[in-house]
Amino acid sequence: MALLLHSTPERGAVWGHIFAEAGEGFIPDEASVTDPAQVTHLACWTPPADLSRYPNLRTVICVGAGTDHFPALPEGVALSRTIAPGIEAMVRDWVVMATLALHRDLPFYLDHAARGEWQPRPARLARTRRVGIMGMGRIGRLAAASLQALGFAVSGYSRSGRPVEGVEIFGANRLDAFLAGTDILVCLLPLTDETRGLMGSAFFDRLPQGAGLVHAGRGAQLDMAALRWALDSGRLSAAMLDVTDPEPLPADHWAWRDPRVLITPHIAAHTDAKEGARHALAVIRADRDGQPVPGLVDRSRGY
Amino acid sequence: MALLLHSTPERGAVWGHIFAEAGEGFIPDEASVTDPAQVTHLACWTPPADLSRYPNLRTVICVGAGTDHFPALPEGVALSRTIAPGIEAMVRDWVVMATLALHRDLPFYLDHAARGEWQPRPARLARTRRVGIMGMGRIGRLAAASLQALGFAVSGYSRSGRPVEGVEIFGANRLDAFLAGTDILVCLLPLTDETRGLMGSAFFDRLPQGAGLVHAGRGAQLDMAALRWALDSGRLSAAMLDVTDPEPLPADHWAWRDPRVLITPHIAAHTDAKEGARHALAVIRADRDGQPVPGLVDRSRGY
Ligand SMILES: NC(=O)c1ccc[n+]([C@@H]2O[C@H](COP(=O)([O-])OP(=O)(O)OC[C@H]3O[C@@H](n4cnc5c(N)ncnc54)[C@H](OP(=O)(O)O)[C@@H]3O)[C@@H](O)[C@H]2O)c1
Ligand SMILES: NC(=O)c1ccc[n+]([C@@H]2O[C@H](COP(=O)([O-])OP(=O)(O)OC[C@H]3O[C@@H](n4cnc5c(N)ncnc54)[C@H](OP(=O)(O)O)[C@@H]3O)[C@@H](O)[C@H]2O)c1
Repeated sequence: MALLLHSTPERGAVWGHIFAEAGEGFIPDEASVTDPAQVTHLACWTPPADLSRYPNLRTVICVGAGTDHFPALPEGVALSRTIAPGIEAMVRDWVVMATLALHRDLPFYLDHAARGEWQPRPARLARTRRVGIMGMGRIGRLAAASLQALGFAVSGYSRSGRPVEGVEIFGANRLDAFLAGTDILVCLLPLTDETRGLMGSAFFDRLPQGAGLVHAGRGAQLDMAALRWALDSGRLSAAMLDVTDPEPLPADHWAWRDPRVLITPHIAAHTDAKEGARHALAVIRADRDGQPVPGLVDRSRGY
Repeated sequence: MALLLHSTPERGAVWGHIFAEAGEGFIPDEASVTDPAQVTHLACWTPPADLSRYPNLRTVICVGAGTDHFPALPEGVALSRTIAPGIEAMVRDWVVMATLALHRDLPFYLDHAARGEWQPRPARLARTRRVGIMGMGRIGRLAAASLQALGFAVSGYSRSGRPVEGVEIFGANRLDAFLAGTDILVCLLPLTDETRGLMGSAFFDRLPQGAGLVHAGRGAQLDMAALRWALDSGRLSAAMLDVTDPEPLPADHWAWRDPRVLITPHIAAHTDAKEGARHALAVIRADRDGQPVPGLVDRSRGY
């Protein structure tokens, strides 16, 4: 039983150390594989082309939180996505920053600052602003708690509509009602067949006039042309995006130059090497003990 | 016994309503004063020139949180600054936004966005970032609690060094140690003789290299030339300012165009008319009952 890492030498060094301490088999890269039959686990962001080399492969571990970029895996091989407190906290921090930035008119002030214009506007209390979070998973729930602590009126939207204490949750069949009651929309959905292209023109039209968009899910969930249209019509007043379509956003893309859009280059989180290794160890132990694999992805529903 | 308001007609209408409901005497503006002897309280941002007109004036109420712009008042007249949950929450929101913006390299990303450059940088966990709050009063304590809840390592600095639960507090004689342990400095001090010009070159040199500055106190506490110097030397990596010197900042000021500096035009808080009126009612009742006046300013120490 051994884990094969498919990553950088720097990460390999950190993982090697943690696996040695834990007494688990570890192979730092494909070139070091002597007996492919030893490889039971593979950790990577994108898997190597030919997984059929590893007849005993049991679980592939994605080192990030989203697995939408993963190809089909051989029959019987499970997929686990990394669950790490650091990823969740980092995305939460970015979402809180972005929500406050829209709440406090930062795009407006930055635009005026670029022209040297001192132009105050009245401020609003957080409790008068309704924040709607799409995707009430691990990250969405953490973001909801932090935004509520700042006083925002928070509601959530998820596929199952599963209750979350202290937050009004809308299930998938109540998207209209959810959007109608949202002043700042936060997207934290995984990319699946159902969520690809979700945010288009008809979608934005269901928000109140002048709503804000905070997007930290995946770029392909947002139709960038529809975003521009929604901004031009006043349906949306501003947006802050950590993910775009495409990525990287080309230098001549309109969104870079639109003062209503703030963009960061998909940096809301990155996986700490130690946390990644610890998640992989937890997967190996669960597999050995016949326990549920942490972060197991249901590939039929896509997350 | 009556309160004279020196403000806008819009605020006068809100206050008039609340005072009528409370059964307290209210005069909406100076032109409506028939008997100056009736005026026991005056509420304003800046007082009218001649207060000697009002022989029975007892307390002047500043409708904002800071009173540094106030002239000397006639002998025996007290000064109260408005205490309002809304002001404190709004400044807290701005401070959390600004601290997260520096923590997550927003000035760097905005600068690259302006050139259409997708340039990710590694992110850091909040718990690895030490935030030092100068001024642990009503707003400083609220900001400390919110930043701690996000995981930041928060310390505080105040004149008295009075303990605050769960936060390491440095008294006025330990400024050096406070600054040496601060990665992001948040200024929430009142403007007094002691704090005017506090943040100059020698001050910034006591921070770790590459520190960030979040300033929501008063413009005159910051030497803008020293700020530029500290940025150029790398002592400071970035700053977010809600207050500047002077205000408004002239259109041709270097700080507007420096990508390391984000500026908002003194909008961290504004006083809600209702909350302002409620504070004034509390002052009137305290005066009548011989209780301590809420928001009483100690003019010898300046806040
Ligand atoms: N920008 C970044 O750097 C970054 C970093 C990390 C993650 N992310 C994104 O954040 C996403 C969420 O991460 P997570 O750890 O919170 O995931 P998670 O725990 O799996 O939660 C996913 C949530 O989305 C809901 N959902 C899925 N499909 C849906 C649909 N079709 N309609 C409505 N709701 C749907 C799920 O509903 P149920 O509760 O009913 O299952 C669940 O609440 C990731 O997939 C990734 O795309 C971005
Ligand atoms: N940007 C905006 O829109 C905005 C809005 C509202 C307020 N403000 C600013 O925020 C300031 C603070 O408001 P607040 O309500 O929190 O005031 P506060 O409750 O009076 O607290 C003031 C704090 O500053 C400390 N302090 C005063 N002088 C000091 C000195 N020389 N050295 C070290 N510490 C000193 C005090 O120490 P002790 O605890 O020992 O007394 C106290 O902790 C206001 O005065 C105003 O300048 C800005």
